[in-house]
Parts: sequence; structure tokens; C-alpha cells
Amino acid sequence: MNDSYLNFVNSPLGARVARSLRWPLPEVLRRYRADTPEFDGIVAVGAGPSPQLLDALADVIAHIGMTSVAHAGASAWVPLANRHGLMTGRFEPADPAAHSQAGSQARVRALVFDASGIEDSAQLDTLYAFFHDALRSLDKCGRIVVLGRPPEACASPRQWTAQRALEGVTRSLGKEARRGITSNLIYVADGAKSGAKSGATSSAGNSNDAGIPSGIESTLRFFLSPRSAYVSGQVVRIGTAPSALGDDFDWTQPLAGQRAVVTGAARGIGAAIAHVLAAQGAHVTGIDVPAATDALDATMRQISGTALPFDIAAPETPAQIAAALDELGVDVFVHNAGITKDKTIAKMSEPAWRNVIDINLSAQERIDDALLEAGTLRDGGRIVCVSSIGGIAGNLGQTNYAASKAGVIGRVQSMAPHLAKRRITINAVAPGFIETQMTAKMPLAIREAGRRMNSMSQGGQPVDVAQTIAWLAHPGSAGITGQVVRVCGQSLIGA
Amino acid sequence: MNDSYLNFVNSPLGARVARSLRWPLPEVLRRYRADTPEFDGIVAVGAGPSPQLLDALADVIAHIGMTSVAHAGASAWVPLANRHGLMTGRFEPADPAAHSQAGSQARVRALVFDASGIEDSAQLDTLYAFFHDALRSLDKCGRIVVLGRPPEACASPRQWTAQRALEGVTRSLGKEARRGITSNLIYVADGAKSGAKSGATSSAGNSNDAGIPSGIESTLRFFLSPRSAYVSGQVVRIGTAPSALGDDFDWTQPLAGQRAVVTGAARGIGAAIAHVLAAQGAHVTGIDVPAATDALDATMRQISGTALPFDIAAPETPAQIAAALDELGVDVFVHNAGITKDKTIAKMSEPAWRNVIDINLSAQERIDDALLEAGTLRDGGRIVCVSSIGGIAGNLGQTNYAASKAGVIGRVQSMAPHLAKRRITINAVAPGFIETQMTAKMPLAIREAGRRMNSMSQGGQPVDVAQTIAWLAHPGSAGITGQVVRVCGQSLIGA
Repeated sequence: MNDSYLNFVNSPLGARVARSLRWPLPEVLRRYRADTPEFDGIVAVGAGPSPQLLDALADVIAHIGMTSVAHAGASAWVPLANRHGLMTGRFEPADPAAHSQAGSQARVRALVFDASGIEDSAQLDTLYAFFHDALRSLDKCGRIVVLGRPPEACASPRQWTAQRALEGVTRSLGKEARRGITSNLIYVADGAKSGAKSGATSSAGNSNDAGIPSGIESTLRFFLSPRSAYVSGQVVRIGTAPSALGDDFDWTQPLAGQRAVVTGAARGIGAAIAHVLAAQGAHVTGIDVPAATDALDATMRQISGTALPFDIAAPETPAQIAAALDELGVDVFVHNAGITKDKTIAKMSEPAWRNVIDINLSAQERIDDALLEAGTLRDGGRIVCVSSIGGIAGNLGQTNYAASKAGVIGRVQSMAPHLAKRRITINAVAPGFIETQMTAKMPLAIREAGRRMNSMSQGGQPVDVAQTIAWLAHPGSAGITGQVVRVCGQSLIGA
Repeated sequence: MNDSYLNFVNSPLGARVARSLRWPLPEVLRRYRADTPEFDGIVAVGAGPSPQLLDALADVIAHIGMTSVAHAGASAWVPLANRHGLMTGRFEPADPAAHSQAGSQARVRALVFDASGIEDSAQLDTLYAFFHDALRSLDKCGRIVVLGRPPEACASPRQWTAQRALEGVTRSLGKEARRGITSNLIYVADGAKSGAKSGATSSAGNSNDAGIPSGIESTLRFFLSPRSAYVSGQVVRIGTAPSALGDDFDWTQPLAGQRAVVTGAARGIGAAIAHVLAAQGAHVTGIDVPAATDALDATMRQISGTALPFDIAAPETPAQIAAALDELGVDVFVHNAGITKDKTIAKMSEPAWRNVIDINLSAQERIDDALLEAGTLRDGGRIVCVSSIGGIAGNLGQTNYAASKAGVIGRVQSMAPHLAKRRITINAVAPGFIETQMTAKMPLAIREAGRRMNSMSQGGQPVDVAQTIAWLAHPGSAGITGQVVRVCGQSLIGA
């Protein structure tokens, strides 16, 4: 759990040693803290031709209280930002000649580019112009967000092609920005419905609601926030399912009044998920095996939660969970519990195969079936499953684990359309190398490779997974379903 | 172009040194040679419950003349293989205790598992049983092929989930098999139409044609053949578009009588593509920039092809290509030409951005538009584009290149439905680290990382890309469109 190299290179001596030896230089990532403002500083705005999402963006930036500057290519921004009552100015590129003193210049916290109007590959040069000018001005632990349209919904092959090309830009930017900077791409469906204002009939300072996709608010907040410290190189699609949050929605307690369940909640990532959901206002019920009852009780006491000492793999458990939760129902169910039993397949025992598949995959299926049949999971609810990079890329010695975690991706993709009619979303997070008791036991060389082979040059923390789950569980994230989001610091590893 | 480490560890002394130091041990890959039988040896067949593709599989194995053995879990195989006139027997697992003398036991060339009937995650244990028993018996440079159903077409979420889980198994097997073994997953749509027999009214020794998807033949051949030496960890979908090949189809000259065009054909991967397509019977027209005319002429002379010294990026070129090809038309168009101009975006010049996007992406769009509008590309034709792992994962210093290659993926996905009504397929290959003049110029450390960070522990050869393109260009590959196949030895790198 202790990355001593990260500590070393962030000491004055260590930084000098690492620089002279050209070792990787991981930043201490800026993470969300309740005692520090979540949003501050400047966002630089860029845009391609005919940008369609600037109004929604201005809305969110006004809500979160950031200042903005407009790149020369985003001339539409200034009058629009003024309408939203935003402090705004012009972006001045850092002087390339003064590169070494860049620290003394005005730094920006985030670069946001609206690429929604790009219809042809030749127009991609607007991204070049913006990031060429602006990337050097981005502060460490800064944020890059590119907004586009879902390629598969584009009218013409050329538009689809150009929108699909954004992935290559965004992922490359993440790999070259380093310094704890994240880079993500959000495809916003045309007509994605509004967030905080959809229930309201009017709201001062905002232009017409018709067709304005401010359903991007929970997602834009997440990707601009320190909460997404270890989420980079991701592509998220926001669909048109409406999020009716109301004007008085409390963004500091988005899960207030909701009931959440987390499996495997006694320790590690599960405990972190329970803590974050509770901090956002949810009542949390933690489930873990009876052998972990003491740890589960302790975790639940810390967050005034409820402990349910159930083995999720036991045949009677789904009905027991449904019965235990039935009266009050569930809004958010997080399938986090999982095990590994690693061996090459020739040496693997049959129980090692069966247990991993059953606990990591089949048990989730049985529990969801029981909760959905009993109506325990409320309409408009959220299911979040924990997959893994191993489920995406496969892994040596993990045929069983990779099968189970690839199956989780299948679960999310297959259940999403079925659950849409009840307005329930189902998504997965796929953690990369996360600092836990499990990874602390790895051989040094494998652990170090896992830690450094990503754009952050370090492992993530359990809280990074938990914050990502909380974003997917957010009432404003109704437009996100059937998706897999990696929490991996943009790991090199993939498929 | 010369991997001296590969040569070293395959010498008697080098093998001892590498083994004692636990260095990677890349095999010299078995590649297709015209003077060696393409298919020989034993294929071991496994199956889950209610396998639906064994009949089609038996058909192909009978055609290519391999011997088969059936795992205990594939009891349906023996009578079925007998009906197809196949030599067959029972698979006997290698004795685990005799592991070190495994070389003296009967080795198999390929493991094929029919998972098409798996409907629930609990049934995945049939894969465990087969690969647990059989993986050790697989010869070096052997083949693993798993056959399933496209998850997104499955009736129930549980079936979808279980079929999606196959990806995790197949990719993990590739990572642990090593020894030059490839592992790939083929999702066969229910009703994928027959290959060699679709035009025929009857064929001796085969059971009913109705619903038998032997449109898998070109694909099964490719993945069982040494032609796919560097293709591993891939997932391919075969749709229902019929391939009417006729009973007398000559599998040794699949492109006989066809006209193919290859851009960037003077040298490197382009020249290799031209050679392979010509060897399979096509007349090849090679296009390259006027500055490369001598090299282009030399390459085309070797294969009795035609040289067209055009700069694909010039505005007049699309019309010129269409005019030059118009009389005889084109069956196969390979968009291979591409350039790199690497710099971090802050240091990149605007021309470096524009040129890369224009040559690698926009020029392809303009050429296809011209050929399709003029009707030069014949109905039932094939377009194959060269993308890159950089287009999938992004890369440091390659915002322009990654954008162009991600855009190529968008092209393939967006054009496929448009072209389907003319029975034209469009697909992409995404090379990983291929030994070329370009990679020979890389700094040693980067080159060595690129070479070793894949399941083959070595770079691929241009011919590996060319063979993959030839498979996609095959008249029997009508059911494959809109897809991206990596030629990367199952590189660790991805997204």
C-alpha cells in the first residue's frame, strides 16, 4: 500500500536524483478532500467549427464557480460566457521561449475542447491549434476534456470518422501530458437532456432549455474534479435518458436519502466505496462473508451503515438479501466482491475455476435476478459492477479471473437495454493497478511494473475506484449505461 | 529489420544463457511457405454443451486434411467426424508428471473449442476442462481457436454474458501459452452462410446445408494456418453475408482473376502486401509517390504488376486513380500508404499535423468516394485499411498519427453499413511492432521494449500484416466487415 518510490521522487533530493537518471517522475495526485474547494482556478475553452455544447459547458462552469478563458478558436465563448454571468477572458498562450519559467505564468486547471461540430477529418486541425497553444499552460494534476458526438450516431461516414478520430487525440494527449494530468473524451448524444434544470420551467441567466444537453453536468463535474484523479484515457458516452434533478439539487450530497448496498465491503476497495457513498449522503448496507464480520462491523460503524454478513455465493443469499432490503428498497447496488485464485490453466484446480467464476460473475447474476424480480431495486436505480483490466486484456495465470471479469462486461452490456425501461442504469468500472493488500503481496518486480506502466507512473488508491463508482451512481448520471470505465491511470495495458 | 536477440536465444548456447537468466524466449515463428504443407498434424476438438458449429468445423478440417482427436467433453465429435470422412480418435491428456518429456508425446497443432452452445456462466467450466487437459499437448507455434456466438445477438443477458466471458479466457490463454502459440476468438453469427458449398446443391459426405455456417472457412483456415503467425488475442465476428464460392473454388489461388490496388506499395509493408496478393492470384496495381518510382517499378516488376506513381494526397489523384483503373475495375483496394511526423503537440508544426491527417486519413476518404462514385470498385469488392495500435491506444508524440489511425477505425465502422448493400466489405488491420526500416531507426531501448512486450516476445514481419490483409480480401470473407484486427503478437499495449 506504500509506494516508497513515489514518496522518494517527491522529496527534494529524490527529485534531483530521479531527474538526472531520467527515472519516471510521478506526481502526488491531487485528490478530493472535504476541506479543500473541489473546483477552483481557470478553465481554458477551445472549440472546433459550429460547437454545440458550449452553452451546456458554460452552465456547468458557472455552477461550479470556475473562471474561464477562451482560446482564439473559440470566439463564441466570450459572449456566451457573459450571458451565463461567467468571469471570462482571452487565453494567452505561454511563450514557448520562456518554457523553463512556465511555472511563473498564469496556469490553467483544465482544458476543455468542444469538438461536437466537427464533421470532417480536415477540421481536426482545430484540436491541434488549441492543444498546441494550451497544453503547456496546464497545471500539474490538470484536466483535459474533449467533448464530441457519439460516432455511431453521426449522419455521414465522414462525420463519424472525424468524431472517432478524437479518441486518438485524447489518448495521445494523456500519454504526453504526464504530471498527473488526466485526459478524457465525452461523447454527448444530441438531445441528452438537461441536468439540474430539467424539472424547472425557467432559470435565470440561462438561455433556452430546448435541446441543451446539460445532462452532462454530473460527468463534467467528475472529470474536472480531483475525484477523477486516476481516471484517464477514457471514452464515456452520455445518452438521452433524462436526469430530473430539480433546481434545488444539493450537489454536495447527491445521494442524500438514498440506500446503497456494497458487496465485499469489509475491507479494501469495498470499504472505500462504502465510505464515499456514505460521504455523499447514502445509507450504506455492507455485505461480506461471515468470516469478515468483525471488519465489516467496524467499517459499517464508521459510516453508520448496516452490516449483512452473507456469503454472496451461497444459494440462499440472493433471496436473503432481497428479504433483508425489501422494506426500504435499494437505489444503488455495487457488485464489488471478488476473489482471485491464480494459476496457469494446466495447474489450476477445478474448484479454483468454479469458485472464481461463481463469486465474481454468477453470484452477481443471481443477486440481480432476485432483486429485480422482487422489485427491491427501485426504478431509476443504479447498478455498478467491478470488472478489471484483466477482463479487458486477459492475463497470464488468470483464465478464471479474466473470464469472470470479461463476463461482467457482458453483464453490463446485456442488461443495460433490459433495465432501461425501468430507468435503471448498469455500468462497470475496470480497475488497473490499485494499491491494496492484494497488490502489496505481489513480487517487487511485478508490483513496480504495474505501478509505473501508466500515464500517472503510480498505482491508484481504493478511493479512486470508489469516486468513479459514486459518479456512475449519481442521480445525474442517468444517461450513462452499459459502459465500462477504467480506473487505471491510463495503463499501457489493454486489448 | 534484424532481431539479433531472437537469433541468439534460438542458438544452442543462447538458449542456455537465456533460460538460466530467465530472459524471454521468443520462438522462431512458423510462417507460411509455398514449399511446405500449410496444414498438417492433429487438431484437438473440445466443446461446451449443445455445440452448434462442429459440423462446419468438421467440414473445414476435412477440406484442409488435418487429423482430429476429440476431448472427452466433445463426445459429439467422433460420429460427426466419421460422417465427414475424417481420421479421428480420442484426445489423451499428456501426463502432467511427465511434463519435462512432453516433447516425446504426441503433440497437437491446434486446439479448437466450440463454445457456441454456452448459455450460462456456470457452463464456462467446459472450457476449463478442455484447456486444462490439452494446453500442454499443444506444439510450439500451435493454434488456439475458440468459436462462440456474437454476444450482442444473444437472446438472454445470461447467454450474452457467458459468450462475452470467452474473450477473457481466449486472451489469457494467449498470454500464458507463449512458445509462438496464437489464441483467437471467432464469434459466428447464427445463420452465417456457407463457404465453398453455398452455390452447390449437394455435396457428398456433408449433412444438411440449412443453417450450417460454413462461411467460417476462410477465417478458420487463416487462424489455423501459419499465415496468422503474428495474429493473437483477437476477436473476429463473422456475419451472415453469404460467400458464394462454388464447389470448384481454388483455395490455393483465392484471388485468381481479381484486380487489387495497394497504396504505398514501393517498399516495406506495402511491398509485402503486393507480393502476397499477387501470390494468391491477383493482378496488383501499386501506387506510390513519384519520388519512389524506381522502387515501385522494381516491386511491380517482381510480381508482374502495374505501377502508378501518384501522390495520394494530391487533389487530382482520386480522379486519376479512378480513370486509370476504370476500364477493368478493382476488386480489392488496400489503403496502406501512411506517414509519421512525431513530436509532442506543443512542439509540433501545423504542417506536420495536417500532412499526417491528410495522407493517412483524408486521402483515403477522397479516394474511396471517387472509386465508389465512378463504380470502379466492383460490387462484392473489398477495402482494407491500415490502422495502428497507436490509433487504438494513443501514443506519446503521435497526436496527429493516432488521430489519423483512430479515424481509420471510424472509417471502417461507418462505411461498412453503407457498403453492405453493394456487398463490399471494409475492414482494418492495426499493426503493432513490425520490423521495418522505420522501426530499425528507433532508439535501442524503445525498439527492444516494442519487440518484447507481446506474447510472441518479438516484432512481426511485414508479411504478417500482408497475410492478414489477404484473408480479409478473400472472397470467402464476405461475412467480415466493419472490423479491426490487430497484427501485434498480442501486444500488451491497448486501451
